[in-house]
Amino acid sequence: MDYIYGIHSVLEAIDAGRTIDKIYVKNARSEVAQRARAAGIPLQVVPDERLNRITRKNHQGVIAMMSAIEYVRLDSLLPSLFDEGVLPFILVLDGITDVRNFGAIARTAECCGVNAIVIPAHGSVSVGADAIKTSAGALNHIPVCREDSLSKAVKYLQESGCQIVASTEKSSQNYTTADYTTPLALVMGAEGTGISTDILRMADTRAAIPMFGNIGSLNVGVAAGVMMYEVVRQRLADNLEII
Amino acid sequence: MDYIYGIHSVLEAIDAGRTIDKIYVKNARSEVAQRARAAGIPLQVVPDERLNRITRKNHQGVIAMMSAIEYVRLDSLLPSLFDEGVLPFILVLDGITDVRNFGAIARTAECCGVNAIVIPAHGSVSVGADAIKTSAGALNHIPVCREDSLSKAVKYLQESGCQIVASTEKSSQNYTTADYTTPLALVMGAEGTGISTDILRMADTRAAIPMFGNIGSLNVGVAAGVMMYEVVRQRLADNLEII
Repeated sequence: MDYIYGIHSVLEAIDAGRTIDKIYVKNARSEVAQRARAAGIPLQVVPDERLNRITRKNHQGVIAMMSAIEYVRLDSLLPSLFDEGVLPFILVLDGITDVRNFGAIARTAECCGVNAIVIPAHGSVSVGADAIKTSAGALNHIPVCREDSLSKAVKYLQESGCQIVASTEKSSQNYTTADYTTPLALVMGAEGTGISTDILRMADTRAAIPMFGNIGSLNVGVAAGVMMYEVVRQRLADNLEII
Repeated sequence: MDYIYGIHSVLEAIDAGRTIDKIYVKNARSEVAQRARAAGIPLQVVPDERLNRITRKNHQGVIAMMSAIEYVRLDSLLPSLFDEGVLPFILVLDGITDVRNFGAIARTAECCGVNAIVIPAHGSVSVGADAIKTSAGALNHIPVCREDSLSKAVKYLQESGCQIVASTEKSSQNYTTADYTTPLALVMGAEGTGISTDILRMADTRAAIPMFGNIGSLNVGVAAGVMMYEVVRQRLADNLEII
């Protein structure tokens, strides 16, 4: 992954509005830390040894990990979809931290004509070179929105007219019985923890993938693929345009 | 992965009918090599250094990699399914070599009530501890058949009354328009190479997952999940029992 280091260089990158995934600082009260917070950039306070493992050069206690992509603003993307007469299909990823899963999901999303992927700024994967690679390059084609508050983003999607569909085992509704021919935001949660409670409560539809056998749990990349292709199936059956 | 070494121990394991994934030998004409060939066990001739990397002990030019599971015979499993009144759903994996993909596919298959996974003895993954782990333990529950000739196995499935469905991009038929409520063998090919020509030619149905966007290719674990859950969707819609 690309990074820049040193107080001056990092402050310059913040001022220039360059896309920074995360800043590592040694000192939580330094000017860089304060400016990063003000700019809404994820910040992590770490000991010197951690910084030294990233670079042996003179980092002055500051390293910024640069994003491999430019993020897109959800509140400018969504209106433009409606303006263009597109039936929105947004994918919201709540707490996916495994880069391989994230890449696989982005790859599938790109094949399904998803208009954008929404991830939280904190507690999610960084979209670095690894993610791009495991997505087979899909992340160069599909817009990614990184939101400070995922529940606010979901609220915004809902108020803009999207049906919020939460993929969850905690539902008795089979996912194939819901209607996906409306403007749609599909929310997938992390394996293990699932979708956060507030977003689950907000959802218009809670859709469960049925499971038989003994294991009773799917890889999140597979579950996302099954959900997205059910959306595609229904829209094609209804003669709706996918992209 | 578990292994045993030394001429005597490996010959004994062959005689006892223990499940061996593969035998590494230094000498292609040794007794072990001949007995392995006669027993249909995958054999690989390797230099001494390769054997030394597996163990520094006195291997006498022979190391057998033991399987973490007991394979099941397809020609005894399939008739028993028909006898029990089960609607067969068999998954055939043609040349899947990535252990993580194999594990993810096995996990999904177990959730979908697949009755058995069929893999070729040569040019496929070994079902070792890694595969079991990435399958989330599913491989301890779902029977695996390892066949010397995959095309013979497919022919056998077809002659026994299974519809052979090949998942392939080389088709104009959308996968959701085929009928999966019959006895079924679903064939998935490796990423890149796809399903081998003879099996593709044999198939009753060639089903394509539609793809939009720029990438136009899915991870094989995701594609397998999408196909298997379409089978489940159709069978549930027809009030058929999944397991």
